[in-house]
Amino acid sequence: MSQNDDEKRRASRRHFLTGAAGLAAAAGAGLGVGATEAAPEMSGRAAPLPQDRVEPFRGPHQGGIITPAQKHTYFAAFDLVTGERREVAKLLQAWTAAAARMCAGKTAQPLTDALNPVPSAASPGHSNAPIAYGPASSAYGPQSPSPGPIAMGADTGEALGMSPERLTLTFGFGASLFVKDGKDRYGLASRRPAALIDLPKFVGDELIASQSDGDLSVQACADDPQIAFHAVRQLARIGEAIAHIRWVQTGFLPSSGRETPRNLMGFKDGTVNPPIRDAKAMNQFVWVGAEGPDWMRGGSYVIARRIRMALEHWDRVSVAFQEQTFGRHKYDGAPLGRKGEFDSLDLNATDKDGNPVIPENAHVRLAAAATNDGAQILRRPYSYDNGFDFVAERWPPWRAEPEYDAGLLFICYQRDPRAGFIRIFERMSRFDMLNQFVTHVSSALFACPRGTAEGEYVGQRLLESA
Amino acid sequence: MSQNDDEKRRASRRHFLTGAAGLAAAAGAGLGVGATEAAPEMSGRAAPLPQDRVEPFRGPHQGGIITPAQKHTYFAAFDLVTGERREVAKLLQAWTAAAARMCAGKTAQPLTDALNPVPSAASPGHSNAPIAYGPASSAYGPQSPSPGPIAMGADTGEALGMSPERLTLTFGFGASLFVKDGKDRYGLASRRPAALIDLPKFVGDELIASQSDGDLSVQACADDPQIAFHAVRQLARIGEAIAHIRWVQTGFLPSSGRETPRNLMGFKDGTVNPPIRDAKAMNQFVWVGAEGPDWMRGGSYVIARRIRMALEHWDRVSVAFQEQTFGRHKYDGAPLGRKGEFDSLDLNATDKDGNPVIPENAHVRLAAAATNDGAQILRRPYSYDNGFDFVAERWPPWRAEPEYDAGLLFICYQRDPRAGFIRIFERMSRFDMLNQFVTHVSSALFACPRGTAEGEYVGQRLLESA
Repeated sequence: MSQNDDEKRRASRRHFLTGAAGLAAAAGAGLGVGATEAAPEMSGRAAPLPQDRVEPFRGPHQGGIITPAQKHTYFAAFDLVTGERREVAKLLQAWTAAAARMCAGKTAQPLTDALNPVPSAASPGHSNAPIAYGPASSAYGPQSPSPGPIAMGADTGEALGMSPERLTLTFGFGASLFVKDGKDRYGLASRRPAALIDLPKFVGDELIASQSDGDLSVQACADDPQIAFHAVRQLARIGEAIAHIRWVQTGFLPSSGRETPRNLMGFKDGTVNPPIRDAKAMNQFVWVGAEGPDWMRGGSYVIARRIRMALEHWDRVSVAFQEQTFGRHKYDGAPLGRKGEFDSLDLNATDKDGNPVIPENAHVRLAAAATNDGAQILRRPYSYDNGFDFVAERWPPWRAEPEYDAGLLFICYQRDPRAGFIRIFERMSRFDMLNQFVTHVSSALFACPRGTAEGEYVGQRLLESA
Repeated sequence: MSQNDDEKRRASRRHFLTGAAGLAAAAGAGLGVGATEAAPEMSGRAAPLPQDRVEPFRGPHQGGIITPAQKHTYFAAFDLVTGERREVAKLLQAWTAAAARMCAGKTAQPLTDALNPVPSAASPGHSNAPIAYGPASSAYGPQSPSPGPIAMGADTGEALGMSPERLTLTFGFGASLFVKDGKDRYGLASRRPAALIDLPKFVGDELIASQSDGDLSVQACADDPQIAFHAVRQLARIGEAIAHIRWVQTGFLPSSGRETPRNLMGFKDGTVNPPIRDAKAMNQFVWVGAEGPDWMRGGSYVIARRIRMALEHWDRVSVAFQEQTFGRHKYDGAPLGRKGEFDSLDLNATDKDGNPVIPENAHVRLAAAATNDGAQILRRPYSYDNGFDFVAERWPPWRAEPEYDAGLLFICYQRDPRAGFIRIFERMSRFDMLNQFVTHVSSALFACPRGTAEGEYVGQRLLESA
């Protein structure tokens, strides 16, 4: 792609950004937009980054929740191995500083000429204080023969020369941050929000414990997979002394232009979502309000479920049966009995024999707000593809052989999981016809705190005020 | 993105396509360009597909070899479970037909209104004859309640509404297609090319047998991961009665614009490659010539190696040591002792103490044509990211714990692997300093036959003339 093409793309996307910024402003944000902070050492160019490739990191809400979905995600859960709340706070300070830099297109930490580029002392009252990280003494390799022109231990480098590709980093706190094995590890037990419950075991759950839960979560989303991977990798390096990766899952969306993206079952996914441009709807369904603790007001609860699809089975049933299962037409996404994708569901329509046009156990019926006392969640699903793997099926014909390890990384945000995902899924897990073709193998719930102002770090109001 | 933006992107990419088409023409191709065949049932629009999103499927060479690298790949190896050569030929007929359709932006097979959309009889002399596929009798689910408006069993649908995103499908034949367990399964043993050797075991190989080799290979490349996944999935469905997926690996490249993409070690990868626009170089190093059997002339040999990177270790050594290991500077990609990325290596330069500027065991020195009697291969590497997984390390400190399962899906094409990859890697596997940080866990070699003319199927000259 030529320089000229690049400029055209920037110009063509500017309108889109204006929309997103206007949205954030409408939500009452005072944004420290990152574009002006773009560091030439990262982008490798003197000109500022194209603004349409930058999502703001600071604001009343964390990015990556109502941000229009980027094409790729790298979702990671971490376990803490420290007993000190102070260490957790230092980690979150360093993560916040690095996240702000990376979302603005900079390296995770400033590049310097020194072999050990990381300042060892934290600057009090300032969030730019990396901890617990520096080049090791290289017990397993020769010492560096000579200093290079640029010591890049501060960043692993695979994002150099790239724009941030609309990177967002969304942090969350698991229940085990507050209480783990019955122990109040950090003196935070009394501050655990009621909404941060232990998820119930749902019918059909086949959860892998080591691929579920966690003390901390990071959702990296970007329009490029390497940018998302790079961001989590830097955070993992910064925290490696006290936070170990527990599980990760990548996800992607297809390039569907303005259309609703299709999932790997070939159906449009996410048609019915509360509108992200509707601040009232977001306040009602997504953002924690006065009912939550101070540090969660403006935050949200994320549920992430890795849902494996039995694609080999799905592909063997007729499209007509697939459509009955979903309650929508496959080709155009219209609800059964309707014409257009965005037509509302007619849950009362019957055919000439008096049977419901949308079957009683169809996916869309059970998911609909109308059948859930108005409950809604903000879905942010990605497809995942972990290749091909041995699996023992839980439905007939109970094959035990290699199959696709692919499906949906279901991510949803809500004001209260009890009134959101749990309210909706408790019934779906029992009745949804789609359950014949999917298995939930990983699950986690995290409390994502409110956004941060300049100089503040993620979760500061939780960690410093108890 | 608005319609208007989409048009701008098309316009901005047209120049790029012209370059690619010109290249193919220069190579002597008579191309059946797919753009004009774009089917509205796939694209969901009446207008023809943007030509810059379409790579030609027909021609003297298969696509996906000298095609400028797309952003995503899905590489799959298949095992055949039939003993009949005729069945293999029918499979390749059906794959060729479906591949041509998909590369042109169509569904894998025509959509019809019938519940069983697949014609059961092959049309003699015509490659559009799918086999061994149709909706199952649904032993494990209710019969279809009623026919839908469009029966889509002919395609799983997740690419509907999308452009082909420069999809290429590149087919290959493994040694086991010719001889397996000492058996001449299809009467092809005498036609096995000498160049299709059994790869030697290289120093350091830790190959997983079930993730290596295979009878057939399909390399799907596209600028969108869902398009690549979709393509292989359709081929797997078409062939499911006789060809089972053995292993798969996805890969991606970063959005680096005009720069050489960086791998997950943060270094630019692929700087030194024979130029794909230089027909003479391609004939010398990539395309099989008169030395090969008829069906391989214009074809090439692909080697695919999954190379896991010990990123946790790599990230702990200084950038200076990383640069000594590679023999290049990390930031700008210049060879040690030179200024620019594309400056040639000065393998004879010494420092003031008389030591070589580029160390004896540096990666670039051992890979250089100058140290391999002029041997060159066309590298087409992708990064891979399979998440986080338990691993027992083979280098100090011999940790045994979860680590990144990420690294390089190394793919390279060459006229003869004995004079290409094997020639180069035999020495690298013993001396390359980089070996401390990488482990080859998967390996395969396939013979990719010449391209096809209209009405011809991939490998026809091999399967029908013996």
